[in-house]
Amino acid sequence: MSGTVVVGLDVGGTSTRAAALRLDGVRLGSGRAGGGNPTSHGAERAAHELLTALRGALAEVDPTRVRAGAIGLAGAGRLLADPAGRAAFDRAWHDAGLRCPYAVHGDALVAYASGTAVPDGTVLIAGTGAIAAQVRDLRLDRTADGHGWLLGDAGSGFWLGREAVRRLLTDLDRARPPGGLAARVLAELTGSPDVAAPPRATAEAVVQAVTRRPPVELARLAPLVVAAAVEGDPTGVELVGEAAALLAESVTRIRPAGATDPVVLGGGLLTADTPLAAAARAELARRWPDAPLRTAGDGAAAAAWLAARELPEVTDPPALHAVLVPTST
Amino acid sequence: MSGTVVVGLDVGGTSTRAAALRLDGVRLGSGRAGGGNPTSHGAERAAHELLTALRGALAEVDPTRVRAGAIGLAGAGRLLADPAGRAAFDRAWHDAGLRCPYAVHGDALVAYASGTAVPDGTVLIAGTGAIAAQVRDLRLDRTADGHGWLLGDAGSGFWLGREAVRRLLTDLDRARPPGGLAARVLAELTGSPDVAAPPRATAEAVVQAVTRRPPVELARLAPLVVAAAVEGDPTGVELVGEAAALLAESVTRIRPAGATDPVVLGGGLLTADTPLAAAARAELARRWPDAPLRTAGDGAAAAAWLAARELPEVTDPPALHAVLVPTST
Repeated sequence: MSGTVVVGLDVGGTSTRAAALRLDGVRLGSGRAGGGNPTSHGAERAAHELLTALRGALAEVDPTRVRAGAIGLAGAGRLLADPAGRAAFDRAWHDAGLRCPYAVHGDALVAYASGTAVPDGTVLIAGTGAIAAQVRDLRLDRTADGHGWLLGDAGSGFWLGREAVRRLLTDLDRARPPGGLAARVLAELTGSPDVAAPPRATAEAVVQAVTRRPPVELARLAPLVVAAAVEGDPTGVELVGEAAALLAESVTRIRPAGATDPVVLGGGLLTADTPLAAAARAELARRWPDAPLRTAGDGAAAAAWLAARELPEVTDPPALHAVLVPTST
Repeated sequence: MSGTVVVGLDVGGTSTRAAALRLDGVRLGSGRAGGGNPTSHGAERAAHELLTALRGALAEVDPTRVRAGAIGLAGAGRLLADPAGRAAFDRAWHDAGLRCPYAVHGDALVAYASGTAVPDGTVLIAGTGAIAAQVRDLRLDRTADGHGWLLGDAGSGFWLGREAVRRLLTDLDRARPPGGLAARVLAELTGSPDVAAPPRATAEAVVQAVTRRPPVELARLAPLVVAAAVEGDPTGVELVGEAAALLAESVTRIRPAGATDPVVLGGGLLTADTPLAAAARAELARRWPDAPLRTAGDGAAAAAWLAARELPEVTDPPALHAVLVPTST
């Protein structure tokens, strides 16, 4: 059984990671490539990054030894519904020398499986966007939010960035000197923390600096908010608290009160050791005191585990999870 | 003195109106044309609509009799800063046969002057967007909000429309059948009030219907919210109440506590007899119990009054306001 190799891929917006694992947990190879979300980058580009990452993972592996594979990516449903996109992925898989079939999972399921082997539970992801999903028998069930920056993504990196700019504009409207977080946002957007006389001119410069770029780039300001919260800046602390409450509210839309199955926290804002992660954990623990809270880990390994579960020789998937997927709490 | 003629124009995003008035209040002519906001339509197009409206107002008037004129428009500052835009407006003015100079005012000042002759006060405007401004000596002073749909316009038509869709998406996330306002928003966006199984598919259709259009078109849903509030729909009532509180909050950014000078309410959402107008008045009356609340009226007549004030024969501007500008409370 230890000779069997499985492959997993985690295809994200900014990077693609691949892992080739033996069922005894030995990692035979890892691969990395650029962002490959088929929705934002196109299926051809995504398939190209997939192939690059796969070749990295399989550099020292005979690909015919690979018995199962899985790919986690955002917009998995859209890829599966698109024959051309599916064909591009099939081609990349074949060009990597792989002969086994592969499964495609939503990135939320892979994030969930990177934090726990329990078949039922909840995953909450906050990065540029934000989404919560129920998992039933290791399949995605209902979701909440994930509706994009214009209508949703409450508590996400986009939300933090936009609210930070809104607080700055309120200071400028009130002719209050921007301090702390507001001053840093102002400097980031206009190149200077100085306010013109009248402040309206500075407010207009701020609005123009934001509207020159795609709206989603407001998420680039989220690290400023998190850093301000770490330092105890009152606005930073307040926005992080509001974001955590919004994220937890999204979870309440789909997770029953009193549920005791695990909640996995994923996405850049919740996997790093940030005040937002701590605040989100506190909100979740308050609402579901008996639920284990886990942190998402290695998505490529989790995808490989999801694939391996289907093999006949795998009789104890949770035990295999403990071997294949390094988890933290 | 009654032989003197003044001209005023109110250039809006959807229509341009012109009035030619004698100082005794006799209206010699009115003109109307399409939207002429130079920021959204370009200065040439705006100048063309201006000329059309002017010709309508001057059809029965010898233009050399016109002694003063004023134009109110959104983005007045930008027009004045743009030599080509200013030249296009000069040309239209000249082509209409006018030989007197003209002034250009922000639309917020003209809205203010259409509601009161008092030199100092506040104007609050809510239409597609939302802005509040202080007026000092009949000039715009500080402003609050007006920062556009991505970062501001709190309590505006855009805000009402976006929040109505967000409430619908929350219902769909919670697998709660959308009723009342949510059902109407769903039907407006997808052509049917029916929810798919799973509701996620309907949520995605809603998001796609919104993101296919420019974001600002969310303001087209505002009348649904207002109508729902009129009928007592709980979500409609709640959103209207939140919008009124946000609008009043914008006013607090610039208007001192205890101020007793007038507040003029302008823009389509506040000049019509809507629950939002009533709620905004209640919020303002609670914060500034001693301030008269006025409703914006005829912007073209107000612009004409602003122009006439500069004439040597006008010694009592408030009295002239009473004659030229029909006001309501």
